[in-house]
Amino acid sequence: MQEQHIVKAFDRDLEAIQAMLMKMGGLVESAIVDGAQSLETRDVELADQVRQNDRQIDALEEQLVEETTRVIALRAPTASDLRTVMTVIKISSNLERVGDYAKNMAKRTTVLAEVNVIDGAAAQIRRMARDVQLMLKDALDAYIQRDEKLAMQVILRDEDVDQLYNALFRELLTFMMEDPRNITPCMHFHFIAKNVERMGDHVTSIAEQVIYLVTGEYPDESRPKQDKTSFISDAG
Amino acid sequence: MQEQHIVKAFDRDLEAIQAMLMKMGGLVESAIVDGAQSLETRDVELADQVRQNDRQIDALEEQLVEETTRVIALRAPTASDLRTVMTVIKISSNLERVGDYAKNMAKRTTVLAEVNVIDGAAAQIRRMARDVQLMLKDALDAYIQRDEKLAMQVILRDEDVDQLYNALFRELLTFMMEDPRNITPCMHFHFIAKNVERMGDHVTSIAEQVIYLVTGEYPDESRPKQDKTSFISDAG
Repeated sequence: MQEQHIVKAFDRDLEAIQAMLMKMGGLVESAIVDGAQSLETRDVELADQVRQNDRQIDALEEQLVEETTRVIALRAPTASDLRTVMTVIKISSNLERVGDYAKNMAKRTTVLAEVNVIDGAAAQIRRMARDVQLMLKDALDAYIQRDEKLAMQVILRDEDVDQLYNALFRELLTFMMEDPRNITPCMHFHFIAKNVERMGDHVTSIAEQVIYLVTGEYPDESRPKQDKTSFISDAG
Repeated sequence: MQEQHIVKAFDRDLEAIQAMLMKMGGLVESAIVDGAQSLETRDVELADQVRQNDRQIDALEEQLVEETTRVIALRAPTASDLRTVMTVIKISSNLERVGDYAKNMAKRTTVLAEVNVIDGAAAQIRRMARDVQLMLKDALDAYIQRDEKLAMQVILRDEDVDQLYNALFRELLTFMMEDPRNITPCMHFHFIAKNVERMGDHVTSIAEQVIYLVTGEYPDESRPKQDKTSFISDAG
């Protein structure tokens, strides 16, 4: 009876923790979409809002670590429950990083509003960001439903984001060669594109956590890394 | 008697975990220095070695998470001991990220060996990397000795790294304006410089964990962010 009581208390705690994690995930999803939109529409106010909201995301991560630590100390969960709780910490750390990247993206809205327009770059970034946001949504759904297959799909979709990044990188180089006035905005866009590509990596890492949680093992490391720009020596 | 026995077992486990963490830290320090050196001397073999060693760093992080989880499950540590163990997880995650950045830096050695030389850029990167490596060394020492003051020094020194990054960013813009053939190498250098600046942020985060561990509170968030390039709209 006593044991059952404790088990139920743990489940209730875990539910509360997971609800916090989902709230954090929702805020990060919005940050990705709003950050990209602020860039494209040169909306400085929306960019400011993204930066403000990032504080809430950071605060949620701290709360999550504190809360999980409290639950571990109080409930002394079994090995399997402990694994679940540790996964929350890892996922929240990934979410916090994605939120940071979204904030950094929004930060560049001000400067990009003042320099040469690079045709199509902001729209391309918005598409990449949209892909990453949908991946994140599915990764979080996969977490809640412990859906290994959905998590694996998310991991595969990260390759598309990497390919979009590679294409944009080459395009930016061409713009820079054409006109020196494009150099500054292109440097910013490259920076932003790389950040979105990194967001994808963090979402992939969340999906990997889901697979670890369900199967007890991390997925194969055989997935090829698709950022090819380390090897581009010529802009063609 | 029984309790004392358990306490000692926990301390022994913690020591083993901390030794693993220090081993990981040493590997990451080497990766930073070797990554920067491979760039400057265009040493493709050394770069390959950095990439190989990164697997060992990643494996150590996984081992650390497993080992800490095992210790928590087995020893059910008190709140304070639990905090110490949770700090290990956070620090190892920061170390893994720094190792990743060092690997990415090394990866660009091949391409940079084939393009225009940018005077002084690789040397500037090497200086930044050296600063970050020394910060990391001190952050890890501060951790082992629970030295709050040393940790605070590390945090302050991160501003120097940020300033070096800002200076290099401006310099790269100038090179790109001068000659379109400099654009590709400068894009790579910008990317690398930003990565080194981010390494500094992760080392700062380790130092913040030390302060949290010693004082129970994170340091003031008042430290100004020194990456000013989000606001640079003109290369001057």
